[in-house]
Amino acid sequence: MSSSFGTLFKISTFGESHCKAVGVVIDGCPPGLSLTAEDIQPQLNRRRPGQSALSTDRQEADQVIILSGTENGKTLGTPIALQVANKDHRPKDYGNMRDIPRPSHADYTYQMKYGIRASSGGGRSSARETIGTVASGAVAGKILREKFNIDIVAWVSSVGDISSNPVDSNTITRADVDSTTIRCPDHAAAAQMENLVAELKEIGDSVGGVVSCVIRNVPVGLGEPTFEKLEAKLAQAMLAIPATKGFEIGSGFAGTRLRGSQHNDPFTWKDSRLGTTTNNSGGIQGGISNGEPILLRIAFKPPATISLPQQTVDFTGEAAVLEAKGRHDPCVVPRAVPIVESMAALVIIDMLLQQEARKALQF
Amino acid sequence: MSSSFGTLFKISTFGESHCKAVGVVIDGCPPGLSLTAEDIQPQLNRRRPGQSALSTDRQEADQVIILSGTENGKTLGTPIALQVANKDHRPKDYGNMRDIPRPSHADYTYQMKYGIRASSGGGRSSARETIGTVASGAVAGKILREKFNIDIVAWVSSVGDISSNPVDSNTITRADVDSTTIRCPDHAAAAQMENLVAELKEIGDSVGGVVSCVIRNVPVGLGEPTFEKLEAKLAQAMLAIPATKGFEIGSGFAGTRLRGSQHNDPFTWKDSRLGTTTNNSGGIQGGISNGEPILLRIAFKPPATISLPQQTVDFTGEAAVLEAKGRHDPCVVPRAVPIVESMAALVIIDMLLQQEARKALQF
Amino acid sequence: MSSSFGTLFKISTFGESHCKAVGVVIDGCPPGLSLTAEDIQPQLNRRRPGQSALSTDRQEADQVIILSGTENGKTLGTPIALQVANKDHRPKDYGNMRDIPRPSHADYTYQMKYGIRASSGGGRSSARETIGTVASGAVAGKILREKFNIDIVAWVSSVGDISSNPVDSNTITRADVDSTTIRCPDHAAAAQMENLVAELKEIGDSVGGVVSCVIRNVPVGLGEPTFEKLEAKLAQAMLAIPATKGFEIGSGFAGTRLRGSQHNDPFTWKDSRLGTTTNNSGGIQGGISNGEPILLRIAFKPPATISLPQQTVDFTGEAAVLEAKGRHDPCVVPRAVPIVESMAALVIIDMLLQQEARKALQF
Amino acid sequence: MSSSFGTLFKISTFGESHCKAVGVVIDGCPPGLSLTAEDIQPQLNRRRPGQSALSTDRQEADQVIILSGTENGKTLGTPIALQVANKDHRPKDYGNMRDIPRPSHADYTYQMKYGIRASSGGGRSSARETIGTVASGAVAGKILREKFNIDIVAWVSSVGDISSNPVDSNTITRADVDSTTIRCPDHAAAAQMENLVAELKEIGDSVGGVVSCVIRNVPVGLGEPTFEKLEAKLAQAMLAIPATKGFEIGSGFAGTRLRGSQHNDPFTWKDSRLGTTTNNSGGIQGGISNGEPILLRIAFKPPATISLPQQTVDFTGEAAVLEAKGRHDPCVVPRAVPIVESMAALVIIDMLLQQEARKALQF
Repeated sequence: MSSSFGTLFKISTFGESHCKAVGVVIDGCPPGLSLTAEDIQPQLNRRRPGQSALSTDRQEADQVIILSGTENGKTLGTPIALQVANKDHRPKDYGNMRDIPRPSHADYTYQMKYGIRASSGGGRSSARETIGTVASGAVAGKILREKFNIDIVAWVSSVGDISSNPVDSNTITRADVDSTTIRCPDHAAAAQMENLVAELKEIGDSVGGVVSCVIRNVPVGLGEPTFEKLEAKLAQAMLAIPATKGFEIGSGFAGTRLRGSQHNDPFTWKDSRLGTTTNNSGGIQGGISNGEPILLRIAFKPPATISLPQQTVDFTGEAAVLEAKGRHDPCVVPRAVPIVESMAALVIIDMLLQQEARKALQF
Repeated sequence: MSSSFGTLFKISTFGESHCKAVGVVIDGCPPGLSLTAEDIQPQLNRRRPGQSALSTDRQEADQVIILSGTENGKTLGTPIALQVANKDHRPKDYGNMRDIPRPSHADYTYQMKYGIRASSGGGRSSARETIGTVASGAVAGKILREKFNIDIVAWVSSVGDISSNPVDSNTITRADVDSTTIRCPDHAAAAQMENLVAELKEIGDSVGGVVSCVIRNVPVGLGEPTFEKLEAKLAQAMLAIPATKGFEIGSGFAGTRLRGSQHNDPFTWKDSRLGTTTNNSGGIQGGISNGEPILLRIAFKPPATISLPQQTVDFTGEAAVLEAKGRHDPCVVPRAVPIVESMAALVIIDMLLQQEARKALQF
Repeated sequence: MSSSFGTLFKISTFGESHCKAVGVVIDGCPPGLSLTAEDIQPQLNRRRPGQSALSTDRQEADQVIILSGTENGKTLGTPIALQVANKDHRPKDYGNMRDIPRPSHADYTYQMKYGIRASSGGGRSSARETIGTVASGAVAGKILREKFNIDIVAWVSSVGDISSNPVDSNTITRADVDSTTIRCPDHAAAAQMENLVAELKEIGDSVGGVVSCVIRNVPVGLGEPTFEKLEAKLAQAMLAIPATKGFEIGSGFAGTRLRGSQHNDPFTWKDSRLGTTTNNSGGIQGGISNGEPILLRIAFKPPATISLPQQTVDFTGEAAVLEAKGRHDPCVVPRAVPIVESMAALVIIDMLLQQEARKALQF
Repeated sequence: MSSSFGTLFKISTFGESHCKAVGVVIDGCPPGLSLTAEDIQPQLNRRRPGQSALSTDRQEADQVIILSGTENGKTLGTPIALQVANKDHRPKDYGNMRDIPRPSHADYTYQMKYGIRASSGGGRSSARETIGTVASGAVAGKILREKFNIDIVAWVSSVGDISSNPVDSNTITRADVDSTTIRCPDHAAAAQMENLVAELKEIGDSVGGVVSCVIRNVPVGLGEPTFEKLEAKLAQAMLAIPATKGFEIGSGFAGTRLRGSQHNDPFTWKDSRLGTTTNNSGGIQGGISNGEPILLRIAFKPPATISLPQQTVDFTGEAAVLEAKGRHDPCVVPRAVPIVESMAALVIIDMLLQQEARKALQF
């Protein structure tokens, strides 16, 4: 009952893998914004499967159509409905997956929650659901960039045991990220990662990874204490992405090992406002942005659908061996990059709108 | 603008450090529940400062009063207002903290967001704000326990570099946790942690730590895909607690280093339903509880307020040295234990209500 | 920013007159419901223009498509996206309406609110927006009817000065209502109403009217005090329909002239529960349904777009005469009947879900 | 489950007749506002019972206390908790009302909905619940007046069959309204009304009435199409007040009898913007304020609790005669005046905040 997200910039996504279309309705997009499908398509292209040999072989065009909310290429302030057709509505052969719930997949929990499930299994837990998120996130991102100069860049910082060297979060660009297939800007690490993923694809296994994200030029003052602290909404947003298992802001878990005297970020004067000399806080203090770059890390588990045989039981409890058929990503992180950026944009724009409302009535 | 949390079991908290009272209104508590202050007080006692030599010396009685919503010790189904008086309304001497924002504290961001701030600095970022959370969480916890046999136990699993040995999440109790002052059930580790904290208190420094939490006996089917996946709401809830920097569900960040063939949790038959032989999923698949214990880890940074001198700048940008006066916790994790349990209870009860509504209308 | 409605059965509508499509996403529809376009189309047919000589001459097929949320004719519990294509995307010639805001229409307020407006003028104030409402209301209505035997019938009780004789709200059916073109079940009054509307169409004027509605077999206990009292949500729902100016529940304004001793509804025993011998309360007491039929009346103003010349000013304040071109309904009430029924269904199902959640956790 | 109201200026009210206190938490009040109890008390005084011989004899001081959210008389932007103590917590003798549900009162529906009810009967349907509404409405009203020059005046326009002569809604003040005990500014009509109420009090009967309300100087552009049209939220707000049965905006039900050519409000140039020469629209077009005064009428039924004997049945269905004991208002409209003003203020401020957020991000 909660395929919607946001208070003032509110999205409602829809669609499973094998229905006619997937998409999103954006309610609360500011009027007067120049907006055509071309503004949205690039992020969808970064998300879609079949971009490279590392991903599933499925080829999905995923062309977005704007159904409502614009006229003559400008937003009207009314709801914007975005839609991507599903190419093939007929559920493909999911083989014995109909009877045997995939381990660590949502087949079992969807069945138990709803008493019914889509033939593709996990229904809305399908990666295809994220099309609505990415399409609406592209709209939010455009507004943030054009109106506030806020930009958001995510990248792959580890795959399995292979970690990227540290990247400069002040300067990294989406072009840097896209310079490798795996979307890790450290080319040496990227090559290793790509080899590992290719190997696992070959043998039918999968692997996890970490996506990092920076949000730059966020004005001081965003975040709604207490329960919608900026990091709290970002955490919700990121854990709503399929396959995520962890979230860090700033120093994260590593910060728990430090002393306050090491961890505290001293203030200093930067241009026209206070800034900090270090950024263990990750750009947020007390749930409110402090003007420094916001730094996130998100953990993605290895995809559950693998073709290696798995000893498990079927829905009735009978022992069974599952060998998943079909085309599945051995590692989701490169395609997760635009999804992380999109969720970040959706959180930031909603917080911006709320803070602007407050500022207007401040005494 | 968001001191409220929950859709059907909705709380609204209020109060700063130096106003007349702090508290909470619970809207949506089921009727007919036996409820008196005695049901709520124990968790508040576990939260309050001054419990031990490890904590601040402030002594706060923190007696809760039920203002509304019950009669003859039973809930009426109407809003339950809970209140704890602030003992001393007069802001104490915050010394030069009025002019110098504490590094990594919310003094600066509150001032910038609201254009004004409480004399105690961070306003709602104060730990005192969590009284409303804990009081309402105690009510939610009682319902979960009595009606569904769900129980929730949190404990300290690390302080600084010192980690607890693994605990058995199937059997650990709050009594086990409270058997050490630091609230770590591993007595050997606890002794080391307590020594470290005592040392840091002496020198005026602070340290971070990790709180783990298990939620047992959760029925299969809780969690509202897509954006209110169970882990997403838990992540929001935990990151809304002051001083948190990270969240993990199940295998967390460590899981990113595994192969799918290692990470997947095979199904097996357990009593009357499917269960899993391992629990890397942490009790949630596809955003929906699968009946296994839900396992969380939450990172707390070292408290920002330390009495060691800090080189920083004042609000105008002038170089300054801050030596924070007053009584401050050198480590928040033992007092964070009941807060984590409370936020967990608030999430679970809300998801339970939503799932029960669905089940009632299912065809 | 609020094209969404409902807490647990949540709809998000989209679309203007001249975009590609209008529609709705339903989030929270119970799983397992048999649902095809045939369940939805009849109410859309009752809503669409061009049904009779009394209405605008526009012919719109308004065929609904289910984009998502069902498989093999059953709902999955996932979001249901419903869509109706706009036949002609090119805005027609709105002549001098581009420069002269129509008196009592939304041209002016939309322009001022959003700084831009659709070429058709009032954007989302267009009657075409109600397609999403009616489509989702048809789904809600089906659930209410099949699962709870709740039925909802609306009818035209007055047009201008012409009033229907009282109808028996316990027995009236949609077939009775549809037995006249104007949707008034009193055939004599209906004939007069139809004559009046035909006359006004001829001269290019318009007229208002009243729609009455009964909701039968509502279980005792629906409605969420305080701010979502059942009558409060119904009032919001009805006043959200374009062209409405008033709302009454039960005795309404006439009841203000009575004494308590006349107005009170004495209780009596009915089958298995208490009922009342009169129904001035209109089926609701203290914001909660009492099991008696819920009785509503909704006032619709005369449509603002008329072809008679109107002396007004243009957007710059220059005196101007407006003669609206195009095809416009001289009276909206017959087409408003299914819209009123739909909004009623959307309120009732949401309240049912909330009450079922409460009952499940009651002690 | 919905004692909260508002999106950005959100209130949560609590309290029954016989608990320790009633009150409200305001979440989202702008920071920097001068606010003390003196700003709130006057509207509570206008609401409280025992103001005159026309009302119940209960004397309630109803002194408001600000528990949180201000310091040194200024709002901090944090939640403001307001509380009024209940003088006498012990439920008084409700005599046979425990067994016999009062006709047209909420005793029966509360019992059925919650399976339990407060000893005073209708729980949150008690007029005492409105204290939280009026207290928070006073805060909202102060902001509207001081920041936007918006003012809101309600008055009694009829009691039973006695109607006030038309009042000039452009100039009427609260002082005019309070110049008669019944709060009708037409002194001749007021005298008649007061006589009628005194008579009914004598014999133990009650009577209904209508409250009118004007909201002046509302900026153009408030209201959130589609489902939160300004009139829709006002309708919800007003029907959430106990004892209300109807709502009209502008021409209301009378407008349904007019032709479009009579009803339309022609535009004209007023100072710096378009205005209208008539105001049948009641200040709202297409759900959005047009800058003209907003005009409302709200129907209040005769109070259900009367001391005249009533033939009814008890909870078990046995025939019974009820003679309500105690002190009850024979007519609620004079005390409803500040409640209507408060609900109006709460709606307007929330819409203002939402529109300001939009304006800030408009392209």
